[in-house]
Amino acid sequence: MRDMTLDPIALRTAFGSYMTGVTVVTAMSPDSVPVGFTANSFTSVSLDPPLLLICPAKRLSSYDLFHTCTHFAVNILADDQSAISTLFASRTEDRFGKVNWRRDSWGSPLIGGATARFSCRVHNRVEAGDHDILIGEVLDFDISDKPGLGYASGGYFSRTLEHKAQTGVATEMEKRFVGGIISYKDQLLLTPTETGLRLPHFRVPARTSALDTLTHALDGTGIEIGAVYSIYTDTKANRSYTFYRAVAPSLKVANLGHFIPLETVPQALTGPMAERTIIERYILESQNQQFGLYVGDDEYGDLHPVHLVQKGN
Amino acid sequence: MRDMTLDPIALRTAFGSYMTGVTVVTAMSPDSVPVGFTANSFTSVSLDPPLLLICPAKRLSSYDLFHTCTHFAVNILADDQSAISTLFASRTEDRFGKVNWRRDSWGSPLIGGATARFSCRVHNRVEAGDHDILIGEVLDFDISDKPGLGYASGGYFSRTLEHKAQTGVATEMEKRFVGGIISYKDQLLLTPTETGLRLPHFRVPARTSALDTLTHALDGTGIEIGAVYSIYTDTKANRSYTFYRAVAPSLKVANLGHFIPLETVPQALTGPMAERTIIERYILESQNQQFGLYVGDDEYGDLHPVHLVQKGN
Repeated sequence: MRDMTLDPIALRTAFGSYMTGVTVVTAMSPDSVPVGFTANSFTSVSLDPPLLLICPAKRLSSYDLFHTCTHFAVNILADDQSAISTLFASRTEDRFGKVNWRRDSWGSPLIGGATARFSCRVHNRVEAGDHDILIGEVLDFDISDKPGLGYASGGYFSRTLEHKAQTGVATEMEKRFVGGIISYKDQLLLTPTETGLRLPHFRVPARTSALDTLTHALDGTGIEIGAVYSIYTDTKANRSYTFYRAVAPSLKVANLGHFIPLETVPQALTGPMAERTIIERYILESQNQQFGLYVGDDEYGDLHPVHLVQKGN
Repeated sequence: MRDMTLDPIALRTAFGSYMTGVTVVTAMSPDSVPVGFTANSFTSVSLDPPLLLICPAKRLSSYDLFHTCTHFAVNILADDQSAISTLFASRTEDRFGKVNWRRDSWGSPLIGGATARFSCRVHNRVEAGDHDILIGEVLDFDISDKPGLGYASGGYFSRTLEHKAQTGVATEMEKRFVGGIISYKDQLLLTPTETGLRLPHFRVPARTSALDTLTHALDGTGIEIGAVYSIYTDTKANRSYTFYRAVAPSLKVANLGHFIPLETVPQALTGPMAERTIIERYILESQNQQFGLYVGDDEYGDLHPVHLVQKGN
């Protein structure tokens, strides 16, 4: 049996190399409690009849409901909704109290601001290893013009954010900065400044792109720059910031600053509040990443109720 | 029955709003003929046992084989392989003659240069409307460090290309240009130049991003700029070109040029050969887009054998 030799970590990495969107799958319990979980195991299956499928994990705390329900809904998250993905991949209590939602005609919860939403009747269920395959017939759906959130190799990405980072969003009056959320294993790089420890950041010269500036600033360090993580404007200080995720090859990064354990970063940051907000979101997402075949399956992790962090941009 | 009122075109759009990667699913026929089709109906299902699924359409010309085979393979395409996606979504003859491939231990074709490849034994088949759900047990797999090709709302995208477009790839000596593949329905905008009709393009000033330059050049036209489509360097002329897809709101675009029917564009282009290559690829992909719930299901279209076009970059 060759499959006995498969390395589960490597297999998870291989599965994760396939780019996906992100959904929150929802249903209403018989005693009218809304339940939901984050999943990227969504596939459209058939147009005639209209069918889709999602795969709830057997270890999911809400598995029994999804194993017996007659109706459910699939909400394709928009690219400004990674906080909702994180929320429904966590153990936060009263998660539906923290989002806008309404019942569809069959009682299933529809989440506001999503890219598309499908109301389904269960068409078939198939057992498949540690998950079910839940096939739904689409009874109704709606769609917005918001682009969908993306997920690849363990991280969210927003094509809108990446597009925006390419353009000179700053006005003439604004000072532009570019920064890095630079990790090495479970540590993050901070830089000492006059106003305390901050995420490393650099002034973007006029008529230069943020990414070029960051690439130049990190030249020779071996730090690999990834996706745009957040863009925000500090209107009071008249400054705009674009933060990229980045990975360091080691703890030695010359004079950029020093690494501290990820979970202590929010307390250590003494600069703008927005940086703390960004890093709190980053920590939540990192915790979820460590668990589960998918974006977040409730029972893979052991997260405790946490405060919902809004996107920094 | 509310579902009788579902608009199939709108449903396809809603399904398509979910971002995906792109795979080529392959199998070997009993008489040793390799077969394959492009699909984005891939989902990883289970780690223990290792299971994945894909959904072959019943209208697929190779459906009978995928309905009876004992083994198959899934190749997750890398972001420089959109030409292979187009190839396996077309009716081109001898498609395996146009790619690098080898048999896995069970005979299924593995395509070279892919992001990840899974060798599977059929675990289960489930009928689901106009498709099957084919569940495979992963017997073996490999993974490269190449990022996967993305697909969203009917178009391919490459995060590597979009990343590259943000950086000043040109050397000091190089002249940078940015251009648009600007469509209105099935027509494309061309611009008259000294050397004949060309794709509209603009010189990028020093220390300015390509996207900023294009945004400025198209200001006031209502043309909406989309994803990066191709980046190439004309080493002889010492020029680099970045082309974005874009959509015009009408045929009136002032003095940018004029629209001509898409299929006549390759003949009309009299500039660099690379522009013809880019547009030939664009036409192939446009044809495939019109057909099928997925990236390309053989039997949805009626494409005739065409010459395989390599990526322009």
